[in-house]
Amino acid sequence: MASERSWRLTLAYDGTAYSGWQVQPAATTIQGTVEEALAVVEGRPVKLTGSGRTDAGVHALAQVASCTLASPIPAHGLIKALNRLLPADIRVTDAGLAPEGFHARHWATAKTYEYRIQRAPICPPFEARFTYWHPYPLDEDAMCVAASRLAGDRDFRSFASSGGDLEESTERSVFSSTLQREADLLVYRVRGSGFLYRMVRNFVGTLLEVGRGNLQPDDIDRILAARNRCEAGPTAPARGLFLASVEYPDQTAAADAARVNSSA
Amino acid sequence: MASERSWRLTLAYDGTAYSGWQVQPAATTIQGTVEEALAVVEGRPVKLTGSGRTDAGVHALAQVASCTLASPIPAHGLIKALNRLLPADIRVTDAGLAPEGFHARHWATAKTYEYRIQRAPICPPFEARFTYWHPYPLDEDAMCVAASRLAGDRDFRSFASSGGDLEESTERSVFSSTLQREADLLVYRVRGSGFLYRMVRNFVGTLLEVGRGNLQPDDIDRILAARNRCEAGPTAPARGLFLASVEYPDQTAAADAARVNSSA
Repeated sequence: MASERSWRLTLAYDGTAYSGWQVQPAATTIQGTVEEALAVVEGRPVKLTGSGRTDAGVHALAQVASCTLASPIPAHGLIKALNRLLPADIRVTDAGLAPEGFHARHWATAKTYEYRIQRAPICPPFEARFTYWHPYPLDEDAMCVAASRLAGDRDFRSFASSGGDLEESTERSVFSSTLQREADLLVYRVRGSGFLYRMVRNFVGTLLEVGRGNLQPDDIDRILAARNRCEAGPTAPARGLFLASVEYPDQTAAADAARVNSSA
Repeated sequence: MASERSWRLTLAYDGTAYSGWQVQPAATTIQGTVEEALAVVEGRPVKLTGSGRTDAGVHALAQVASCTLASPIPAHGLIKALNRLLPADIRVTDAGLAPEGFHARHWATAKTYEYRIQRAPICPPFEARFTYWHPYPLDEDAMCVAASRLAGDRDFRSFASSGGDLEESTERSVFSSTLQREADLLVYRVRGSGFLYRMVRNFVGTLLEVGRGNLQPDDIDRILAARNRCEAGPTAPARGLFLASVEYPDQTAAADAARVNSSA
């Protein structure tokens, strides 16, 4: 029997048609769809582990997933084979051998999410699946200030929707949290060690309450201190959310090596 | 009874989910969907006339349509009401009163179509609905030359798919026909007096044959002279095609008036 090799896959997807990442009975999911394609390549069932679950309707620019395969297929062949088997709304954008034992969730050191709020008076139909259309007045400056207040090592329990595991610690490190205008889009970007269930969408829902004047930027500290989901704003719709990138220790190492090589 | 007013509507749509523009029994169409929304506003059935039919899966950046309404609703109210009623993949981007008797098809003086060929090695899932993915080698320079040969006052019967009315004249004026690279996209733009059934997609299918080396730019004249559909290339897929704009005599007049006013 051939020895199995660990793989790291990078996936981009339009999550509109899927019931989220995780395999569920009688539902079409990203994980399930990619596992089916992997099973064709491998000739037997393959278990795929994502860096985290994305909810129904949430998209990914670069989700990372791990699996082991006995197939001796080269990386470019695997990418090509999977993209032929997958529907056009899921693409494998990269694949490479990973260190033995690589686990896309356990090994992740940081994740970045992006949330796109469409501010145009009329939402272009080509962006309807990928933005949350909100043309109504918003104090965007106050939202920017409030966004910055979400960064830090904090207990984010007020921003965790029920459905997640609240027995575990709800402390997380948010390394950066910024909101900025990009033409008609108001883009919220957040990078952190990890995120609680629906935390990013609850951040955005809260920032929208600040934009509407129902909350002030100074309320963010109070909301965090309350450790009570009822204090924060509602959950923003899934369609505006993208998992933008996932970081691993070896990326830093690889980046360092590249830096050394280029300066040599 | 209130007197009816003529309206000119500009529509943008993602055609993926529709069986084209024209109302058909037991099919969801753009025309039918917009007519339903208009009927709600007007309180009775409304007939909508498009500048032309778009096929199943074809998109529009700015389709123009005409109708008459007895409702005294102001333009901004009509835009808002229709966009509330319509699904997110169809938007009314503009509406205005038109001269009495305005007919979106009969009054059109020119139309511009755009066809997007995706050249990236992997098609981003967010563009899969809006581009034709063709990552294989193409002689793009030869395609550019061939594209320019399609301009002129010609008999375009070789580029008309059956299904159109070939009893009518198949002569048309193509004012401009250009192909250019825009990052990962190869974009074909064609502006003409009018287009035969599937003519733009047949142009693109033929340009792709030139790109593959199966035809030479010099073959275009021969294909045109043959007046035979079998001489041209196959029909390119619908998903890459956008109706980009429709021109009317009053636009020139309005543009001239604006120029006079701004220089006054």
